[in-house]
Amino acid sequence: MIKIGMVGATGYSGIELIKLLLNHPQAEIKKLFGHSTVGSSIGDAHPSLRNMISLEVEKYEMKALDNLDLLFVAMPSGQAMTVIAEAGNAGVKVIDLGGDFRLKDPNVYSKYYKHEHTAAHLLNGSVYGLSEWNENAIKTAKLIANPGCYPTSVLLALLPLIKYKIIDQSFISIVSYSGTSGAGKAASANMIFSEVNESVRAYKVGNHQHIPEIKQYLEQFGGSESSFSFIPHLLPVTRGIYTTIQTLVKEDMNEKDINNAFNSAYLSSPFIRIFAPRIPEMKDVLYTNFCDIGYNLLENKILTVFSTIDNLVKGAAGQAIQNMNIMFGLEQTEGLLRCRKKD
Amino acid sequence: MIKIGMVGATGYSGIELIKLLLNHPQAEIKKLFGHSTVGSSIGDAHPSLRNMISLEVEKYEMKALDNLDLLFVAMPSGQAMTVIAEAGNAGVKVIDLGGDFRLKDPNVYSKYYKHEHTAAHLLNGSVYGLSEWNENAIKTAKLIANPGCYPTSVLLALLPLIKYKIIDQSFISIVSYSGTSGAGKAASANMIFSEVNESVRAYKVGNHQHIPEIKQYLEQFGGSESSFSFIPHLLPVTRGIYTTIQTLVKEDMNEKDINNAFNSAYLSSPFIRIFAPRIPEMKDVLYTNFCDIGYNLLENKILTVFSTIDNLVKGAAGQAIQNMNIMFGLEQTEGLLRCRKKD
Amino acid sequence: MIKIGMVGATGYSGIELIKLLLNHPQAEIKKLFGHSTVGSSIGDAHPSLRNMISLEVEKYEMKALDNLDLLFVAMPSGQAMTVIAEAGNAGVKVIDLGGDFRLKDPNVYSKYYKHEHTAAHLLNGSVYGLSEWNENAIKTAKLIANPGCYPTSVLLALLPLIKYKIIDQSFISIVSYSGTSGAGKAASANMIFSEVNESVRAYKVGNHQHIPEIKQYLEQFGGSESSFSFIPHLLPVTRGIYTTIQTLVKEDMNEKDINNAFNSAYLSSPFIRIFAPRIPEMKDVLYTNFCDIGYNLLENKILTVFSTIDNLVKGAAGQAIQNMNIMFGLEQTEGLLRCRKKD
Amino acid sequence: MIKIGMVGATGYSGIELIKLLLNHPQAEIKKLFGHSTVGSSIGDAHPSLRNMISLEVEKYEMKALDNLDLLFVAMPSGQAMTVIAEAGNAGVKVIDLGGDFRLKDPNVYSKYYKHEHTAAHLLNGSVYGLSEWNENAIKTAKLIANPGCYPTSVLLALLPLIKYKIIDQSFISIVSYSGTSGAGKAASANMIFSEVNESVRAYKVGNHQHIPEIKQYLEQFGGSESSFSFIPHLLPVTRGIYTTIQTLVKEDMNEKDINNAFNSAYLSSPFIRIFAPRIPEMKDVLYTNFCDIGYNLLENKILTVFSTIDNLVKGAAGQAIQNMNIMFGLEQTEGLLRCRKKD
Repeated sequence: MIKIGMVGATGYSGIELIKLLLNHPQAEIKKLFGHSTVGSSIGDAHPSLRNMISLEVEKYEMKALDNLDLLFVAMPSGQAMTVIAEAGNAGVKVIDLGGDFRLKDPNVYSKYYKHEHTAAHLLNGSVYGLSEWNENAIKTAKLIANPGCYPTSVLLALLPLIKYKIIDQSFISIVSYSGTSGAGKAASANMIFSEVNESVRAYKVGNHQHIPEIKQYLEQFGGSESSFSFIPHLLPVTRGIYTTIQTLVKEDMNEKDINNAFNSAYLSSPFIRIFAPRIPEMKDVLYTNFCDIGYNLLENKILTVFSTIDNLVKGAAGQAIQNMNIMFGLEQTEGLLRCRKKD
Repeated sequence: MIKIGMVGATGYSGIELIKLLLNHPQAEIKKLFGHSTVGSSIGDAHPSLRNMISLEVEKYEMKALDNLDLLFVAMPSGQAMTVIAEAGNAGVKVIDLGGDFRLKDPNVYSKYYKHEHTAAHLLNGSVYGLSEWNENAIKTAKLIANPGCYPTSVLLALLPLIKYKIIDQSFISIVSYSGTSGAGKAASANMIFSEVNESVRAYKVGNHQHIPEIKQYLEQFGGSESSFSFIPHLLPVTRGIYTTIQTLVKEDMNEKDINNAFNSAYLSSPFIRIFAPRIPEMKDVLYTNFCDIGYNLLENKILTVFSTIDNLVKGAAGQAIQNMNIMFGLEQTEGLLRCRKKD
Repeated sequence: MIKIGMVGATGYSGIELIKLLLNHPQAEIKKLFGHSTVGSSIGDAHPSLRNMISLEVEKYEMKALDNLDLLFVAMPSGQAMTVIAEAGNAGVKVIDLGGDFRLKDPNVYSKYYKHEHTAAHLLNGSVYGLSEWNENAIKTAKLIANPGCYPTSVLLALLPLIKYKIIDQSFISIVSYSGTSGAGKAASANMIFSEVNESVRAYKVGNHQHIPEIKQYLEQFGGSESSFSFIPHLLPVTRGIYTTIQTLVKEDMNEKDINNAFNSAYLSSPFIRIFAPRIPEMKDVLYTNFCDIGYNLLENKILTVFSTIDNLVKGAAGQAIQNMNIMFGLEQTEGLLRCRKKD
Repeated sequence: MIKIGMVGATGYSGIELIKLLLNHPQAEIKKLFGHSTVGSSIGDAHPSLRNMISLEVEKYEMKALDNLDLLFVAMPSGQAMTVIAEAGNAGVKVIDLGGDFRLKDPNVYSKYYKHEHTAAHLLNGSVYGLSEWNENAIKTAKLIANPGCYPTSVLLALLPLIKYKIIDQSFISIVSYSGTSGAGKAASANMIFSEVNESVRAYKVGNHQHIPEIKQYLEQFGGSESSFSFIPHLLPVTRGIYTTIQTLVKEDMNEKDINNAFNSAYLSSPFIRIFAPRIPEMKDVLYTNFCDIGYNLLENKILTVFSTIDNLVKGAAGQAIQNMNIMFGLEQTEGLLRCRKKD
């Protein structure tokens, strides 16, 4: 039984993580740390959890880490660094669902996250938790930087094409649409229902914090630099990301090469479902850890790739558990994939 | 040309009012008063208005009322009293879209609105702007208390049944569902898209400020007291109210009596559409000043009445303009109803 | 391991049932029977199931029932009778998610379902699967008539009040709002997105087939007749039912009596969560087998009760599995409730 | 007064057209032609129109065209050709909201629309009604091919960049999201609410009938060929299109050049609102004839352009009226733009 603590159990990713862990046969939630809800039962703070878990939310302190095997951290950027450093000192493994340990360069971090990095000495030791592309490093990691939701949907779709040198990397167009839960639970005038419903808007064009994350890992896992533009849009749904990528394929590449690239990359990946020539629909991945991928090559050599995930599962809590499974020597799918039992 | 000023042009009712007035052949918007947006063009504050109106938002002061015929006030409860008193002194007619002058008893007001009434001396002179039921008083009014959105949908459906003594008034069940624009534009954690979408919740059960408003005017226009329960619910749509009322009819009443009651009440009301035996749908009234009403009498003497309006039009800005039309001797429908032209 | 077959795996209830059963430790799906999708893999017919189950959809024939312990039937009303009769002859237990075996009187059935009942001889032996109110009969049942979605939400809220004689049963107002998945997957012009979105409409007023079901079981489990009006509405969400019931309490009844009634009725019911004085929100029950109940008593003796369920889970597939658990001697919650593991 | 007839008044574009025309001071609807609703009042067929227009729907026949000045045709592709030919013979001007007369090459037409063109002799005389780019030809046209909704949003955004030679035309990525009303009112299993809500899907990738339309008019109005990929997606909203275009700018082009291109192109276009550097939001154009355009140039020379319209207004009925205004010598904005009156 993996003994688990959580810091920041009150956001959407935190709640999702609790619900997924309650379904995990090898995980035991021992401690929930919070702020505004300290002293109350998690079921009072989040009525959806009633009758499922009755733990009291505690104030975090270092000694509360005793006897934990793993600490999930789901806090706003910049607030997690102290806790994570202390957990490291206490010998507790950490999976950070926030963005603080994904970028290797603290200057890039401060440019996009708008504050200084106060635990830069830990950056080198952190391991990017893109499960399908970094499994070996994850196995032995002490600190996992769990990927952002948009980068997960983008990297899983693009990396096979870059690794197998299918596409022209001088101009990649990336258009993503995300549900609102990605923006978290905080009150914000432009996130109220009346402003989001029956509408669409692009946002943070050219300065979204996931841009350097995509860039860094396209290069690290793909092996070469790419020039891309990533345009996030807000979608009037609660959950889900749909990413549409367009790029030119290299002169001599055809559909078979593309098929081979995706099949080679994801042959043994239970959570990646290749849909081509069908086009994936967002509803088919909601509440699951799947990433569904489709693609289409036109006569004019323009390739379109579609990728869709649940931002709270494969884009956050689900992938975090997938990483936990890898770290603790379990099947990747443990607690995440319902499968038909056979005799 | 009616010369118009507006206080509080920045909320949903205010914007709706501007859009409707821009379509009104006899109205000219002369002044927009605001707070946080003072000094900017209304089109900058509200991009949807660009190319339609280029007025600058001004800070309100009493002398700015000079040369106005009518002041619309669309402010949060409690903030409008000073302005309205000053407008009265300046001889400018006022239509208040807020709730400050609807309840005749200041004690009831303070109980439901949670603050004192500071202009109680004006309560007697205010006229409730339920256009279909108070036309004569509206004609000569100096201060109109424009009805609340829920009360509009409830009163229009119930008053014919009470006036014509069709129903047992000892227990009336009123269930209303409203879109989110009724809650205004303020940031609020429980109004963000992720909390409202794909959900429903009742709220303010037993203490909603529209309860005493419904009670007072059922009595004033219906002629006798009723015992009812009004349960508002939040609906995952932006606009619209759907009200379902259930009550027993008196022993000797039948469907014909009900038809007669509604037809008598609304014979010359262009904005009331009687749908029975069809059931009205909310989408048919959106962006219009209509109130669509349907009803159904069961064998066990239970009568169900359906009533649906656009909360921002018939429930706020549209009815306000309907009242303006009545006050200034125009056709009720002027600027509000698109009608087929005939030779 | 319970060996399971399903007829009608292609509707929303069927898909939900498959997903829930895949998560059940004691259930093994052996056979999927369909029509239009016969011969194809269920994952091709329903991409959301890919990588989870690879069974091929078969054409139903009686001998395919061999070796099954339980047959779930999720077919449109009127189509299930032959299969169910054959399963009975083959000694296979049946849980019918449709409406064919809920009403004891075949004349009432044909009045509301608009066709004759062709297996009336089985009506007497069928057991209504309202898990919380009929557990003993369910234990030994051969044929379960799984309750309708609306009746589940209504009966769970009303039965304690009737059994403990809290309310005046001469006039009960029942207003329900349902998501669109309750209407199934068939193409229908008035169910397309553009017609449902940003709207609300009541429907089947006075003639919905769930009216006699509610009536029969209020009487059977509550012990006396009630006069009520049930008004279903269509809600622009995919899943979930929200029911608001209003009724007068008897003269001498107070809030404590109401609390006692609900607590007595549901003391040992893990899926019923009593929220009073909080008001339940629909989103908190989605994708779960919970029914959340709240209530509020006004000074004028009007009691309002709120009840919310996921129509596809507690209102269909989830309750069906709860009944399976009871029939096969398992914990009610097996495969349905994620619970915190403790040392 | 322009005397107007309409064929196909029952679809979403038709209803929108009626509502807009009712607000037009110079237009008189004389005849409504339909099929399934012949003989009934349009207000019975479409309750939203009650109290606004009471015309009866007639069966079309050629002699009914007498005394009409203009015929709007809003029929499914392929059904309009006979009527349009007859109207031409009768000397009645036609605005066709369908796709039958947009493509100059009947072979391209039959490839994308999947049936033969039976009035190819009229193709040469038809004028593409992209109001902002074809005003002179529209003035004297007898037959207007009103643009498709997607092409309107794409062409208005791209043409200035092509005309002023700002961008590299060898690879243009076009991603559009549309509300469901674009798919019309027909019953279709994959358009029901449960299938569209809380989801997104791309569709008709590489074979959408708007692809050759975009191609033809980019060339005709832009002056040179472009290689692009147009990917339409279905959005869970009723109305609105949001288009995101990405392309490389030419080496020597900068933000100022882009500004100049848009400003030059749309200096005197009341319905085009340039938002840069703000990003347009779809909700700001709903129920209007505006097209809001924004753009953003990144350091890596990737230019993103955003364009949003209401698919039923600027993408159909509104632009049709704009074209009518131009044809009949009225102000473009007549009946379409609410503007502040000034002394």
